[in-house]
Amino acid sequence: MSDSPIAVFDSGLGGLSVVRHLRQLLPREDIVYFGDTARVPYGTKSQPTVVQFALETAGFLLQFDPKLIVAACNTASALALDELMQAMPVPVIGVVEPGARAAVPLAGGAPIAVLGTEATIASGSYLRAIRAVQPTQPVISKACPLFVPLVEEGRNSGDPLVRMTVETYLGGLRSQGVRVVVLGCTHYPLLREAIAELLGPDVQIVDSGRETSLVVQQHLAARAALSGRRTPGTLRCYVSDNPARFQRVGSWFLNESIEHVEFVEPERYVNLARQPSERP
Amino acid sequence: MSDSPIAVFDSGLGGLSVVRHLRQLLPREDIVYFGDTARVPYGTKSQPTVVQFALETAGFLLQFDPKLIVAACNTASALALDELMQAMPVPVIGVVEPGARAAVPLAGGAPIAVLGTEATIASGSYLRAIRAVQPTQPVISKACPLFVPLVEEGRNSGDPLVRMTVETYLGGLRSQGVRVVVLGCTHYPLLREAIAELLGPDVQIVDSGRETSLVVQQHLAARAALSGRRTPGTLRCYVSDNPARFQRVGSWFLNESIEHVEFVEPERYVNLARQPSERP
Repeated sequence: MSDSPIAVFDSGLGGLSVVRHLRQLLPREDIVYFGDTARVPYGTKSQPTVVQFALETAGFLLQFDPKLIVAACNTASALALDELMQAMPVPVIGVVEPGARAAVPLAGGAPIAVLGTEATIASGSYLRAIRAVQPTQPVISKACPLFVPLVEEGRNSGDPLVRMTVETYLGGLRSQGVRVVVLGCTHYPLLREAIAELLGPDVQIVDSGRETSLVVQQHLAARAALSGRRTPGTLRCYVSDNPARFQRVGSWFLNESIEHVEFVEPERYVNLARQPSERP
Repeated sequence: MSDSPIAVFDSGLGGLSVVRHLRQLLPREDIVYFGDTARVPYGTKSQPTVVQFALETAGFLLQFDPKLIVAACNTASALALDELMQAMPVPVIGVVEPGARAAVPLAGGAPIAVLGTEATIASGSYLRAIRAVQPTQPVISKACPLFVPLVEEGRNSGDPLVRMTVETYLGGLRSQGVRVVVLGCTHYPLLREAIAELLGPDVQIVDSGRETSLVVQQHLAARAALSGRRTPGTLRCYVSDNPARFQRVGSWFLNESIEHVEFVEPERYVNLARQPSERP
């Protein structure tokens, strides 16, 4: 048993949609979260920069002596997981592989559509993770850059602009025999209804964040590292900018109000001594 | 006469729409540009963070011994101009005041609509700058957060999603007697046609970037600081991430191809010793 917290980081507040599942599934675990809201988003940035930012953001959380780190950001998971696993002294679980692993059996050989940010899609990480499970699996990758700003503006599945954007990005999938859609960005579950309605009842939707919470549970259970506490776990959030906005918008993702949010000054996480391995 | 360069900074590549006007109006001036593409956008961030980033970004350009610094970012101009003017050893010109000053006489007392990012609109800077010219001027402020990602995705005024977004944000202005619209974000000129078409021929559009280039010209002329060179001025661009994306997307804003783009490592512009005056 371990009462050490689970550390979760994200480029901003989207990772709270992963925390939501973690708290439902593992209600006694303490969670400590760092959202890099000063430099959000990561999804339009280069690999070396995302690696640098992810190492700094995860590195900040080590002071809480976590038993595990969750990279609750699809872009960071897609672009920086190897570097994180190498640099961190505790296990790191990303959201790409759990989403990919869940999608393959559901597809039954029909095409899987992966939706994500510009950087996640360009990285080909989901494609590689799916093909590692099933080498002949057909995959359609689709960057949906407007979904994040639509959600951040507070628009939901009923909004006409959301419906038109979903139709613009995903309308073409209907004729391609897609059986499974992977939500490869932590913002996308908030548009799930609009996506489901467009694609119809025969298409199953995989939320990488939910699948990741199941993997975290299995990982901790297999190592007898679940919390032994009988009281509800706490959630402490840290952000590199704008705690008030995080608290307001973040509660949509978490589906509960956020009590503890603390601002983190740049000198507490930016590491100018660490050089990226390559230039963008 | 001065052959020192004009320094221009922006949160990313939007400021190139200001550089475009500078190069048309002042073709013999050298321009050195820094786009903070690692931390873009500024428009959803807090005032202390935007101040810190703007001071770092402008500070990087001082090594080129500029005769003038242009804050070609509406958010930085709205939230950080005082701090920039105080900290920089050369004059700093922002884009808010030139846009506001141009709009008032065109409105003839009818309402002016100001369009900008979440942070620019929340700052009230355009409102204050307009009221400084004409204290009774009616102003309607409208945040248009989807315009930047629409432009960055390469969508233009003919795109149905652009038209629907313009209608969603600005449809209400038609019944409010608006005579002038200020494009208070450097990305918005790329959607000018769609905005003009929705609002009709009686509404005049003010591009803050264009007005700023006129103010720069007047400022330099009044101080006998225009370049005395007879050959075309150069443009050197520096970015904190992703030079390839900057070169590709930036050329839409500049309306010419970008020859010189150089990546700048964090330790060359991030200043952890400088503390923001307040916490976000």
